[in-house]
Amino acid sequence: MSNTRSLPVLEPVAAPCCPPLTERPLSADEAERTAKMFKALGDPVRLRLFSAVASHEGGEACVCDISDVGVSQPTVSHHLKKLREAGLLTSERRGTWVYYRVEPSVLAAMGQLLSAAA
Amino acid sequence: MSNTRSLPVLEPVAAPCCPPLTERPLSADEAERTAKMFKALGDPVRLRLFSAVASHEGGEACVCDISDVGVSQPTVSHHLKKLREAGLLTSERRGTWVYYRVEPSVLAAMGQLLSAAA
Repeated sequence: MSNTRSLPVLEPVAAPCCPPLTERPLSADEAERTAKMFKALGDPVRLRLFSAVASHEGGEACVCDISDVGVSQPTVSHHLKKLREAGLLTSERRGTWVYYRVEPSVLAAMGQLLSAAA
Repeated sequence: MSNTRSLPVLEPVAAPCCPPLTERPLSADEAERTAKMFKALGDPVRLRLFSAVASHEGGEACVCDISDVGVSQPTVSHHLKKLREAGLLTSERRGTWVYYRVEPSVLAAMGQLLSAAA
């Protein structure tokens, strides 16, 4: 019998990845994972929505808070879902609304990837 | 008659842009400019090529240096051109080859955009 107990491991939606881009060429796997996040921010409307969530009071926002980017509410919801699927936002339903929050560890990893290359 | 002379202003391909994403929502113009750069890195092959250039000896590389990403040389050239058009790489022809180099100021701005949001 063993005294050790295995603790549950919380798997992040998208694990932060990869050395700074100046260090060595990314592998195919690393590039696949990381490109998804860049792609998610590669659309002007999604990027505006992302900055709207990131800069919103308390670091979170629901569709009801974001209405000034010139697209319909279903379109906003669609883009927020894409950002969540890319691992950049997390979401939580509270009553009628889904609240979105920036995933700081993933963002920090992306920032490091780029800033270390400068 | 005036003694002042106007000096030529060097316009960068893509000017570094925008406050950290946590500061305020990006405007439509800012998002348009910035999304282009994220989009350029949003493709796995382009991201691998970008890291291959960024991590190459001397910080520059030509197509002749990059041959291990599993795509043909014309495809490599095509992707490097896209990265240049997005303002992420600069290029210079020397003899037979075009050499690509990372544009550090643009990268640093992108890194800041993300890391400050963490």
